[in-house]
Amino acid sequence: MTNSAPVSARRDLDDTPFLVAARGGTPEHTPVWFMRQAGRSLPEYRRVREGTPMLQACLTPELVCEITAQPVRRHGVDAAILFSDIVLPLYASGIGLDIVAGTGPVVAEPVRGADDVDRLPSLEPEQVAPVAEAVGLLTGELGRVPLIGFAGAPFTLASYLVEGGPSRNHERTKALMHSDPHTWHTLLDKLATTTLTFLRVQAAAGVDAVQLFDSWAGALSLRDYREFVQPHTRRIFEGLAETTGGEALPRVHFGVGTGELLGAMSSAGADVVGVDWRVPLDAAAQRLRESGSVPGEPVVQGNLDPAVLFAGREAVEREARRILTEGRAAGGHIFNLGHGVLPDTDPDVLSRLVEFVHSESARS
Amino acid sequence: MTNSAPVSARRDLDDTPFLVAARGGTPEHTPVWFMRQAGRSLPEYRRVREGTPMLQACLTPELVCEITAQPVRRHGVDAAILFSDIVLPLYASGIGLDIVAGTGPVVAEPVRGADDVDRLPSLEPEQVAPVAEAVGLLTGELGRVPLIGFAGAPFTLASYLVEGGPSRNHERTKALMHSDPHTWHTLLDKLATTTLTFLRVQAAAGVDAVQLFDSWAGALSLRDYREFVQPHTRRIFEGLAETTGGEALPRVHFGVGTGELLGAMSSAGADVVGVDWRVPLDAAAQRLRESGSVPGEPVVQGNLDPAVLFAGREAVEREARRILTEGRAAGGHIFNLGHGVLPDTDPDVLSRLVEFVHSESARS
Repeated sequence: MTNSAPVSARRDLDDTPFLVAARGGTPEHTPVWFMRQAGRSLPEYRRVREGTPMLQACLTPELVCEITAQPVRRHGVDAAILFSDIVLPLYASGIGLDIVAGTGPVVAEPVRGADDVDRLPSLEPEQVAPVAEAVGLLTGELGRVPLIGFAGAPFTLASYLVEGGPSRNHERTKALMHSDPHTWHTLLDKLATTTLTFLRVQAAAGVDAVQLFDSWAGALSLRDYREFVQPHTRRIFEGLAETTGGEALPRVHFGVGTGELLGAMSSAGADVVGVDWRVPLDAAAQRLRESGSVPGEPVVQGNLDPAVLFAGREAVEREARRILTEGRAAGGHIFNLGHGVLPDTDPDVLSRLVEFVHSESARS
Repeated sequence: MTNSAPVSARRDLDDTPFLVAARGGTPEHTPVWFMRQAGRSLPEYRRVREGTPMLQACLTPELVCEITAQPVRRHGVDAAILFSDIVLPLYASGIGLDIVAGTGPVVAEPVRGADDVDRLPSLEPEQVAPVAEAVGLLTGELGRVPLIGFAGAPFTLASYLVEGGPSRNHERTKALMHSDPHTWHTLLDKLATTTLTFLRVQAAAGVDAVQLFDSWAGALSLRDYREFVQPHTRRIFEGLAETTGGEALPRVHFGVGTGELLGAMSSAGADVVGVDWRVPLDAAAQRLRESGSVPGEPVVQGNLDPAVLFAGREAVEREARRILTEGRAAGGHIFNLGHGVLPDTDPDVLSRLVEFVHSESARS
């Protein structure tokens, strides 16, 4: 497995609802998948994960393949998303970190200054060879269901490294950004390189699209996002477009609480912008149009509040119907939640929702 | 202490910068105070709080007075805010709850259905008599510095009660809201009554303004906020205006992450809308104007990112200067952070910031 493996590993799934919608076309029905669909909400996931630490699981190809395929089998979603963890490429590159149950990623030596940034290793493609292998297995396993590659964006990765773990206020991260912009940009440049390498490996191995998660970008003002984050995210999206050449690999970009940033996240080079539940899809589409970031009509993904899945069938269908209606104001709509599936979600509710979205949106 | 105590307990501070700005006038300098200015960032606070549990502290008049006055003495801020806790009126009304260190409020019997809501006690004014007493002490202690009353808004209180404690996703709260609107509205009506009683007690005892914190309203879409929250918040603000009669007691309303809700929060009856750091004040003022919720020019409060206080003097002053400039686009601006002071903040940074805001904004 190398960085320059042929792009032809990819299946021809251009007519599947997910890829049609991602490219702004009209699919036979609105495609639907769920962020964190592979994970703790599924008993079969908890069973296969038992006894295997998270990062080890992400580097075990058979396990990644099984976990990624589980929600496709169970729910009939229109896309699979590669099971991974946002800090995986950091860990694989040799940065000392562990995922601690109940806490999240804990970084052994937080990155606090220029020297720490200089010492950061970058990711070599062979360090994530098991991920490429998992993608290879999945292209066989998934049949005609597209596989979305997965990576975390530089700001979110930087916050883990600088804070030393999950953070509510990102104060050390923002302090570095505002007090030492040079070191900040050096750090984000390194992280963008690592992310790009990680996504290129996945692209070469055969993923059909990618989603870049800037989970915590919503903690930033638009001004700070533009100055301190957007250029690095743009380099990733542009670099990925160069790698995949003529074949357009749809690039989805998402962060929670990013209502103020939608245009800027789109301008960074995303083909599809994920929207949480705070901004209706018609309003989101309008913001994308006004930002001038989209050549054609904007394509959006989202935006059901994951908490609504706890409110009973009637509420779920009412909200889903509204979202499908509002989504028609965009050039394309991929149905999803506005954030990840919550661990206590009843999986049957998700299965019924997939069926509902398909039947409500079917073009006769 | 009764609900109908004379309003005349209030000092005449109409010409102080805080009250001038809150009413949309032009003060001698831009007033500045900080959310959570009384609290863990101050060594003198940690000293006096030692050994006293939070809720007990909030019901000890001398301690409330001392803690509330500390940041005024140290920083020279233009307003004091009553030291209290968002769940205090619930606790005082007889609901079983405790504040657990490292967790936050924990409710003994979470409110999950109609029967639980029926059983909820409402607050009697005498149950918060120590708070009224503290306000009385403060009107003597504070000299010419206005005192802002404090209460939590119904949605945030409901989330504590329904979830049983602090929540990241508010899924049980939103499930109740969407699955059983009747019970939801009954619950919020009760909480609005309790909040209104709590604020009326403070108004009668002599506070010069109030701030209603809907800390978690930013978790809601505008649609849900309007349908499930706004009517109850409006009843509080309107009820308070009736109580204080001819004397306009400025009503400030704040929640973090509420960029989509600013107009609706203003329409609920707020005179001043607090803005976090995600929306610049000129954009916030424009949203308030467009919402048609303000008769005159909008008055805003905020919006320095509390994390910037960790970035060194140059960054703090650069950001403060920008915010002062953007604040001029509003009818009035009260300088504040975009969220509460973080516990590790260096108090000297806050003192220097007060001085900077005063000197930068002084009208000669």
